[in-house]
Amino acid sequence: MIGCDCAVCRSPDPRDGRLRSSIYIETPECAFVVDTGTDFRTQALRENIRRVDAVVFTHSHTDHIMGFDDLRRFSWQRGSMPVYAAAETMADLERVFRFAFRATNPFPGYLKPEPHVVTGQFSLGETTLTPLPVPHGSSEVNGYLFHRAGRKLVAYLSDCSAVPDEIARKIAGVECLIIDALREKPHPTHLTVEQALEVAARVRPRETYFTHIAHELSQSYETRLPPHTHIAFDGLKLSF
Amino acid sequence: MIGCDCAVCRSPDPRDGRLRSSIYIETPECAFVVDTGTDFRTQALRENIRRVDAVVFTHSHTDHIMGFDDLRRFSWQRGSMPVYAAAETMADLERVFRFAFRATNPFPGYLKPEPHVVTGQFSLGETTLTPLPVPHGSSEVNGYLFHRAGRKLVAYLSDCSAVPDEIARKIAGVECLIIDALREKPHPTHLTVEQALEVAARVRPRETYFTHIAHELSQSYETRLPPHTHIAFDGLKLSF
Repeated sequence: MIGCDCAVCRSPDPRDGRLRSSIYIETPECAFVVDTGTDFRTQALRENIRRVDAVVFTHSHTDHIMGFDDLRRFSWQRGSMPVYAAAETMADLERVFRFAFRATNPFPGYLKPEPHVVTGQFSLGETTLTPLPVPHGSSEVNGYLFHRAGRKLVAYLSDCSAVPDEIARKIAGVECLIIDALREKPHPTHLTVEQALEVAARVRPRETYFTHIAHELSQSYETRLPPHTHIAFDGLKLSF
Repeated sequence: MIGCDCAVCRSPDPRDGRLRSSIYIETPECAFVVDTGTDFRTQALRENIRRVDAVVFTHSHTDHIMGFDDLRRFSWQRGSMPVYAAAETMADLERVFRFAFRATNPFPGYLKPEPHVVTGQFSLGETTLTPLPVPHGSSEVNGYLFHRAGRKLVAYLSDCSAVPDEIARKIAGVECLIIDALREKPHPTHLTVEQALEVAARVRPRETYFTHIAHELSQSYETRLPPHTHIAFDGLKLSF
């Protein structure tokens, strides 16, 4: 955190230096990103990302959308950029990035969004995404379940303050649960470590990864977690 | 640039890796930043910035405002964050960061902007800022002239496609001119190297620094520039 001298902010473990949460999914037929936070350009350069065929949004908080315009590189390559978001999130994107959503785009290199309002399951290549609406304080965020070839591969719940049973049942037995676990101390809009573990106990994934971690949790905290429960870090790669 | 293999993007000189343009001004009585681009958090962490008493905006393009919310750390320290911008830029900030400008701020750690619409000269501590409206394609951007103790210290013109004579006269003889010089090839909204040198010839500053440089110009290009003309780089520090 800016201006902070705590043990995690001054940690020599590079994994304790964290950028904003997002994931990049690469399949043989389609590559897409979930959220373009403020750090999107830095992350795309770090990982040498060469292809983005679509962007999917969880919600419109600044740490998830402010890098949107840096998709221009990929939009220009493809001719446009398919954008998947719930209606409210799309409306916020249209308000914030008004210049990009305007019908008359003056420069060819500009980001040209192609909006797709998410109202239920949709597919990107051969991956099916099921939106998982979860509370994030008083607002609602879309988590996503990624299925492929009959397998429930990943459930991504980056920002939530609770996971209703109906959602937990939908993702039950998923191979990999990536879930918000901000810190130990309660927070009005994010899960604590204890709450995230309680969700994992209901969902019973093969592996659980904590994300959206605050500077109160070090990477070394992982040793205190149950088996098959991990603290995700920037640049982490998972294969299925 | 994302997905680019050109000589500058693959250069071993770390100064060829550039984040979005902005400047941080530290005086004994006041510290402030001009623009909070998408990289503001990364820049503040890199430079170990501990104090921001105000933010001044040149214009509202994404590469100059999208890191605004990361001022929350400094806003929380002070109780609020004075924001200086021309009326149109302020309106854009209010639209994009609507949650922050709303009267009822739900969380104490949120950014609490204190808007000051720039209509003429103003002071931050003992530094006087004169807005320098310049064309940036079809829009207008505020450059700024920084005076202090009777000295014309710095003229900052980060984004411009021309510098009208009236503005050149205002900043004539400034100690340091920091000016947009995107590349050699003409661009509809930015100055070329040749155009920036032509402005410098009219302004006659003691030193000139090029900023807002595209990946067509390497740091080593500096050797081809006239005396007292430099290519600025990330982390460059100037003292007056």
